[in-house]
This record gives sequence, structure tokens and C-alpha cells, in this order.
Amino acid sequence: MQGMIMDEPLLLSTLLWRTERLYHDKTIVTRLGHDRYHSYTYAECGQRVRRLANALTTLGVEQGDRVATLAWNHYRHFETYYAVPGMGATLHTVNLRLFEEQQAYTLNHAGSKVLILDVDQLSLAEKLVEIGIPGIESFVIMTDGPLPETTLSPVYHYEELLAAASPAFEFPELDERSAAAICFTSATTGNPKGVVYSHRALVLQSMALNMQNQLGIREQEIWMAISPMFHANAWCVPHAALLAGATLVLPGVHPLEADYIETIRDQRVTGMNAAVTVGSMMRDYLLDGHDDVDTSSLQRMWLGGQAPPRGLMEWWGKNRGVTVFTGYGMTESSPQVCFYSAKSSLSDLDEESVWRRRTSGGLPIPLMRVKIVDEAGEELPWDGNVVGTIMIRSPYTVNGYLDDPRSATAVIDGWFDTGDLGCIDPDGYVTVKDRAKDLIKSGGEWISSIDLENALMTHPHVREATVVSVPHEKWLERPVACVVLNHSTTVTGAELSDFLQERFAKWWIPDAFLFLADVPKTSMGKFNKKLIRELIAEGGLQPVEEWTNTSAKESSAAPIAS
Amino acid sequence: MQGMIMDEPLLLSTLLWRTERLYHDKTIVTRLGHDRYHSYTYAECGQRVRRLANALTTLGVEQGDRVATLAWNHYRHFETYYAVPGMGATLHTVNLRLFEEQQAYTLNHAGSKVLILDVDQLSLAEKLVEIGIPGIESFVIMTDGPLPETTLSPVYHYEELLAAASPAFEFPELDERSAAAICFTSATTGNPKGVVYSHRALVLQSMALNMQNQLGIREQEIWMAISPMFHANAWCVPHAALLAGATLVLPGVHPLEADYIETIRDQRVTGMNAAVTVGSMMRDYLLDGHDDVDTSSLQRMWLGGQAPPRGLMEWWGKNRGVTVFTGYGMTESSPQVCFYSAKSSLSDLDEESVWRRRTSGGLPIPLMRVKIVDEAGEELPWDGNVVGTIMIRSPYTVNGYLDDPRSATAVIDGWFDTGDLGCIDPDGYVTVKDRAKDLIKSGGEWISSIDLENALMTHPHVREATVVSVPHEKWLERPVACVVLNHSTTVTGAELSDFLQERFAKWWIPDAFLFLADVPKTSMGKFNKKLIRELIAEGGLQPVEEWTNTSAKESSAAPIAS
Repeated sequence: MQGMIMDEPLLLSTLLWRTERLYHDKTIVTRLGHDRYHSYTYAECGQRVRRLANALTTLGVEQGDRVATLAWNHYRHFETYYAVPGMGATLHTVNLRLFEEQQAYTLNHAGSKVLILDVDQLSLAEKLVEIGIPGIESFVIMTDGPLPETTLSPVYHYEELLAAASPAFEFPELDERSAAAICFTSATTGNPKGVVYSHRALVLQSMALNMQNQLGIREQEIWMAISPMFHANAWCVPHAALLAGATLVLPGVHPLEADYIETIRDQRVTGMNAAVTVGSMMRDYLLDGHDDVDTSSLQRMWLGGQAPPRGLMEWWGKNRGVTVFTGYGMTESSPQVCFYSAKSSLSDLDEESVWRRRTSGGLPIPLMRVKIVDEAGEELPWDGNVVGTIMIRSPYTVNGYLDDPRSATAVIDGWFDTGDLGCIDPDGYVTVKDRAKDLIKSGGEWISSIDLENALMTHPHVREATVVSVPHEKWLERPVACVVLNHSTTVTGAELSDFLQERFAKWWIPDAFLFLADVPKTSMGKFNKKLIRELIAEGGLQPVEEWTNTSAKESSAAPIAS
Repeated sequence: MQGMIMDEPLLLSTLLWRTERLYHDKTIVTRLGHDRYHSYTYAECGQRVRRLANALTTLGVEQGDRVATLAWNHYRHFETYYAVPGMGATLHTVNLRLFEEQQAYTLNHAGSKVLILDVDQLSLAEKLVEIGIPGIESFVIMTDGPLPETTLSPVYHYEELLAAASPAFEFPELDERSAAAICFTSATTGNPKGVVYSHRALVLQSMALNMQNQLGIREQEIWMAISPMFHANAWCVPHAALLAGATLVLPGVHPLEADYIETIRDQRVTGMNAAVTVGSMMRDYLLDGHDDVDTSSLQRMWLGGQAPPRGLMEWWGKNRGVTVFTGYGMTESSPQVCFYSAKSSLSDLDEESVWRRRTSGGLPIPLMRVKIVDEAGEELPWDGNVVGTIMIRSPYTVNGYLDDPRSATAVIDGWFDTGDLGCIDPDGYVTVKDRAKDLIKSGGEWISSIDLENALMTHPHVREATVVSVPHEKWLERPVACVVLNHSTTVTGAELSDFLQERFAKWWIPDAFLFLADVPKTSMGKFNKKLIRELIAEGGLQPVEEWTNTSAKESSAAPIAS
């Protein structure tokens, strides 16, 4: 027997409909520069979203097409978040942090037709054209100024397109399983993998995020979305903020920690989300002679991408009255899997026990099923001790990657293999202990150790190479390479670093190269990365020679990402 | 292009899965009597839910079948809320307030196979068998005592069935559009209409209810669900409470206002939902010599079914520190359409303007689209003045009634016609002004004036009759009949009252009969009910004779329903 309920699809345009009507006078504020902000209402935003949909239609974009962006967090990028999926096309937010060859790959692999870019990404886009992105039929430049000189062609001015377009556009009634957005995520090896979000997944995740005991953005809040809009839909926060009718603050082009702090002060921001690294840099900025900046409006800070250190959480609480909380997510899950909330039973626990939960990944969000399994795939108990591979299943989670053979191993018996190892306590708090996959998470972005190893081993003098993650104060994790050279050869760390820079983004390059006589291996003959990490931590590894990139610590090439 | 997301259905069993794991130690408390409560955990509940699913399977219930209940708000009834939909059958909660013939009609129309009943409903069930409910193959009695003597057959003891059943049951992966529950709602005329809720509708509505700026039940709350579980799924509150992992308090069999107040005191209830009438009776109970009862735990009270009077809201706020809030809903919308929340912009308004919004139906809930239209179906502006028919559209709203020709007029161009007249202000607050349909809402339950009129006009001495709603202190609305007799005939109000009691539930019988020389009519020749109501209010109607049921005011036959 079927229910007799309207078959109303879960669409992003439905969220926009409601917010335009109920919260038309609430604002979206974008930082333009020191003391300069752009502010407009959701009503004005909605009108521009419709103009953009019409403008893209005139550029030949049809239902089912892909439209790509190369852009920071600002109101124009926000408009693409609703115009492109609203018209039935799919928004591909190209990750600004990827290596250029990878960016070109994602544009080609997604089959994107139009590329909308920030004016500061112009030379990158020109480079991508050189590399080859033949599917892009039009370039649209988002800028406050005139259209710059460029080799891109045909090229359009975003504002001119909007000015010429009608503000009347009827959003089509799409299948809720239609693709709304595509984000690419780094793989253990090879090219990034395409994650294709449906309208349904994003609407459900936004609703779940705004529930009590979850993120729970309220209409009364002034929320700053720092996590980039080119990375995992900015953690779905733009959608959740719009759904709540909250004031949304976007930090604009290439923001730095000083900008975040000033924006909090200027806009009286009450809540924000950012990578753990950003929360740590903001603290350092305040400590570094800016103690007098008024951040008193800020009440809560969601730090994600990695588990925030307790010291950082305590610092914000004690010094700035800010509650720091976290979750557990990934590009493949729209992105949240878990979210921290303080259960009422925690009031009976001692401080240490509460902190263990606060620094965990939190509890599975509504509609999310989580289990941990052993190597044979058998489910393990939730006892807070046994560690297994974390498997997830939900209407937010991918069932594969875009045209990718790696889909075959992504989902096992209906459960997505996160590649993370963790335990779950009897109350459901999930703690990530390690990663099964060879990935390093630096400043919230993934680095593939395998790709670095494979590249190193193509060097004529390198016999063996393994890249492991070491803890890092600012980026939380950084890659370090252990290298064994062929007999009677020499090569310096600096040379290997240069060698890798031809193939990878700057922030992928290992901070140090340890030249060893031999790399420790497991009984199976694989590199024993766990042991190597431990030996590095304890100083128990005896390199023949050691080379450290002295500029790495301050390098601006490192990512500030999710 | 399709999204690449798991096709995980939105099922009630998924909500149960999560709550059993994350909130297994939280409790469901049922009032058994003075100072007596039954309490168990969600984990124990989940086990019994599975036992019940197995027990129903042994009784022959299969996917697609209907299982009916005749029961109050208690833990066993709650178990049926998850066992029956969980196994893929549909739960038909028979409304205890309906007239017996109507109850039998709903059982037959829904095609229910098993009837699970409270022991206090035994004689009613025997009566229904006499009327004829041939589809019911088994009767299951919920009682703490032994199986009573009864003519029902075959009859089973709920607890014995559970004790004999296995606690292992794998919930099937159903289509989320499968029917989870059926409730019947009173019609303008004729038999009640069947509303068939899908799993999808109930899961989405539960998520929406628990969002910020909506009902927003938190895990930390102790929530008492007073609105009956036999009426519109108890406003979806049992599902929302389970989803939140909140402590759920159920008031048990045939509760009275004293019971609610005592339960608040005993269980330290923090929030509750009930019909406006109940909130008013609870106030009267406290004022009537029970001022010393400690209700200090209670923070918020959702009064629904009708707009609560401002005086009542103020009383609870001033005297008991309880925030009273309301919404706008109907059986046909799972049930919420709107919910009140205080927008941040209200802080700029004067007290009267805020109260106008607080006593409105509130703002459309997420995923809900609302419009008002004129008689030609043209959309009217949201100016807070123009009144039109309220039309709604959402994944919570019916697209028709169960096997019912009245489906044809229920939905117009994809919008459900609520039959309510109202206005919407520029901020989106919806205010219901009147009803287009001839229904009277007494104590939260519908009474069909047309059915009463038709019945009255079958009386040999009645020439014309119209039944209108008049304001009532306790039940908010009560029916009053205006009757024109045939020449040279006499009949008393008492006689007409007895005449109607053969056909209708006691609480349907008009409180007064006004014998008129003529009934005011519109230019179209229809009864001018609006004018009649106004004349009654102003004392401008001059009855030839008047008869008032002096026992009506205290009648326990009146409903305490939604």
C-alpha cells in the first residue's frame, strides 16, 4: 500500500522559495576588503539567482549540463549555488587547491560547459586552457571592475550578463535525485574522484544540520562560512544558513586570519565554521598583538576537517567565551557523518570523560547509520575500545564516483568504506583513530602519500620511498618522505623537492626528506608506515642524512581548506 | 544527470535504529494512575517493537496489510507506531471520538485485519463487531491484567503475544512512499476521509519539527505528548521525540486535567503539546484550589488545533513561567503547515504587533509552500489584509483520500485546498480567519454542521435547519442549531436533541436550538451562516423559542482531542 502524499521533490529551489518569502529582508554580507563589505538581502539575491539562470540559458546551458566555478566565498559564488542547480544543471566547484593538471582533469571529467571564475583566478584559467579544457564553451568573469585583458574566449562579464537578463525564471520541477553539485576529492592514488550530490542529499543534509542537537543554525544568528565554497559545498553551510534565514557572512577573496577576526568584529558574527587550522591561526593572530580586537559577539565555532586539539578548544572557551565544537565528515557524505552534541547524560561525567566526547567526531547525524568492521567485514562492538574500519550508510552518502573504476571498491554491501579506522563508544560517540588509506590531511586538504611515493620512485637515483604524515603545529599534519637511494648515487633533498614540484601543488611537497639505509617493512613486505611514524615521533629513526625545507613552516603554499 | 548518492529510503525504522543506539538509556514514561508510572528505555522499547512485529507476523499480518488500534497514549500504543510501519504494514489509529458507525466505517474502509485495543475499549469493540467489521481477523487486548471475558474472537493478550515472540526482527527495506499510517478526518458531509501517510512524509515532518525555529525538541527535554495518538499521529510528536532522543511522557488511559498537572510535577516535564482546550482546562484546574502544585519544570507548551486566546497564553507566561506557542496544521498535512517562531525582526515591534504574530498560525515550515487565492483561484498578495483560501503544497501534504470520490476536489493544480480562509502578512505569518467548509471545531475535533442539518431536516416537523458555530469558553466552538418548523407543528429542543443522539456522537449534539420564523439567507438562497453567527453574537437573532441543553456545559461527552 502506498502513501497518498504529494510527490513533491526535495529541491534546492524549494528552500530558496521559502527563504525569499519569509526572510526576504535578511542579508548576505561579503567582505570586499579592509572596512569594505557588500551586503544585500535574500530577496535581492533571489532576483539575481533568476537573472543568472536566464543568463546561463542564453549561454546554452540546459538541464543536465555542468557549470563550473573557480571562486572564493562571496555572494556571486553563492548565487551560482542556487542558479545552476535550480535550473537543472549541475554546479562543479573546482577546488582552488588542486594542482593545475588535476583541475583540468576535473573540468574535463565532469564535462563542464561554462566556467565562472573570480578575476584573481584569470591566469590560472588561462593556464588550464593551455593544458586543455576543450569542453568549456564560455568563460564568465566575476569582478567589480571592467572585463580584464585575457586570452580566454569567449569571455563574459558576470554583471553584464545579469544586467541583460530577466529576473523572471520559473525553476523546473526536477527529479530530486538529479545532480545538483559535483565536488572532487583527493584519492589514495591517481586523479581526484568526482562526488555527485543530488538535490535530495543536500536538502536532507541541510535539514539535519539545522536540527536541535546538531549544528542548529538559527534565524537569529549571524553566521560566517569560512570553509571554502569550492570544497564539499562549504560543508553545506550556505544551504543550511539560507534554510534558517540566518544572516550569512562570506569572507571574500583570499582571506587571511586577520580578515576573519576583523569581520567578526565588524559584522558582529555570532557563529562560524572553519578548518581546525584556521581556528588555530585566528587564535595565534589574536595572541600576536591583537588581543584588543572585540570578538565578543562570537558564541560558537565549528572546527572541522580534523579533530581539534583540546588546548585550542579550551583557549577559545576561556579567553573569548567561544564554544568550539566539531564533527566528522567527508566530501563523500554531503559532508557530515557525525556531529557533536552534549547528551544530558554527560552531566554525570567527570571533566576528562566529557572532553573525550567533545574531542571525538560526535554522534551519527539523523538518518546516518555507522558501523565499524574488522578486516573480514564483521561488525565490531560499540565498546569505545575496539578499533575497526568505519563504514557509513545514509541518503547523504555516495554510492560511487563519477565515471570512475574506483567506484567498485567504494561501497561494500551497501556501506561506504570511509577508509578511516575508529571506535564507537556505547553512547554512540565515534572517534577516528587512524586512516586505512594512505592519505595525509594537511590544513584540512588531502595529500596522497602514494602519489608522492610513486613520483619519487620515478627518480633515477631513488630505490625506495615512502611518505608519512607527521604532526604539525599549524597544518596538523604534513608529509615527510623517507628515501633509500641506489648504491653509489647522491641526490639532495632540495633536488627531490624541486623534482616533485614539477608534478604537484606546492603544499604537497614533503617538509623533510630522511635518507635512510632501509625503510622498515611489515611482514608482508609493505612499508610499515605506522612504525615509521612512531620512530619519527620518538626520534628512533636514524637517517643517513636529513634535509628540511626551512621555508616550509611559513610557506603560504600550504592549504587553508575545509 | 543523476546524483550518485545511496538510494537510502526515509523510513521510520531508520529513526528507531539511531535512537536505539544513541539514546538507548533514555526513557518513555507512561502514567498508569495516581502516583503510578510505567517507565522503560528506548532500548527495551525497541526490543518489544521487534517482538510485536514477530507476533503480528504470526497473526498473519504481511507487508501492505493494515493493523488498527483503539487506544490512548501509552507505551504499548507507541510500540505499534514502530512495529506496524516497521514491518511494512500500515497503522490505522481509530479515532476514539468518532461515532461508532463511523469507527466501523473507517475499519472497513481501511481494510484493517487486526484490531489492537485498550481493555477499556472492549465494549466499544464488541459493539463495532455487532455493527459489522468483518475484515478484522484478530483482536489483541492491551492490558496489565488477565484477558477479560469478551465476545470478541479470536482474541489475544498483547503481553502474552510479545512474551512468546522473538526479539529479533529485521525491518525490511521498504519504498519510502509506502503507507506507514492512516488517520481519518471528519468531512464537511458524509463519512470521515482517510489520510494515508507515507514513511517519507512522517520522517520529513519529524525532521522539520525538530529544526531550530520550529518545535525543536531537544534530547535534554522531558516531553509530554497529550494530543491523542489516535488523532493525526499525535501531531507527529512521538516520532519527533524519538528522533531527538528526548524523554517521552505519555499520559495514559483517559487522562483528565488533574492527571496532566500531576504528571508534570511528578516527571519534571519540561515541554508538552495539547489542544488549546486542554491548556485552558489545566489553567482552570490550577486556579481551582490547586495553586500550590509545583509545575516549575514546565518551560514551554505547544497549544494547537485552534488559535489559543492571548489571555490564556499570557496567563501561563505570567503565572507559571511557561511560554505558550502555536502553529497551524491539519490531519491532511502530517499535520503541521506552519509553526510560530519569533523572528529577530520582531524585537523592533511594539507589544501588540508581536502578539498579533504570536497568536497567528505562524510561518510555513521548511519544505512547505503556502498561498492564498481568490474565488477564481488567482493568487493574492501577502499584505496581511487580503483574505483568501489557504492552499498548501509540500511532501507532507495529501494528494487525495483513501478510495474516496472527494479526492477529486481536494487538490487543485497540485495545491491542497485547506478549506480555511486566511491572510498572510509580508513576513509570512499566516492567520486563519474563517473556514470555507461548514465545519465546527469543538475542543480540537471537527463537527460537520451539514451532517447535523441534513439529519435535522429528516425530522418530519423541521422545515429548515442550519447549524452554526458559536464561541465557547471551554471547547472554543460549539454547535447551535437554528430551526424553522413546519406550520402548525411543535417539537421541543430536547426532542430534537434526542433525535440527533441516535445518529451522532454525544459531543456533536448542538448545545442550543433556536426556533426561528425564518433562517437568514444569502442572495444565492443559501443559509447566511456568517450573518447568523453575528446575530447570535450581538443578540440580534429573535428566536420564537429557545432551548438550551443545561447539562451541555459540564458534559463529559465533549471531545478533548487534537
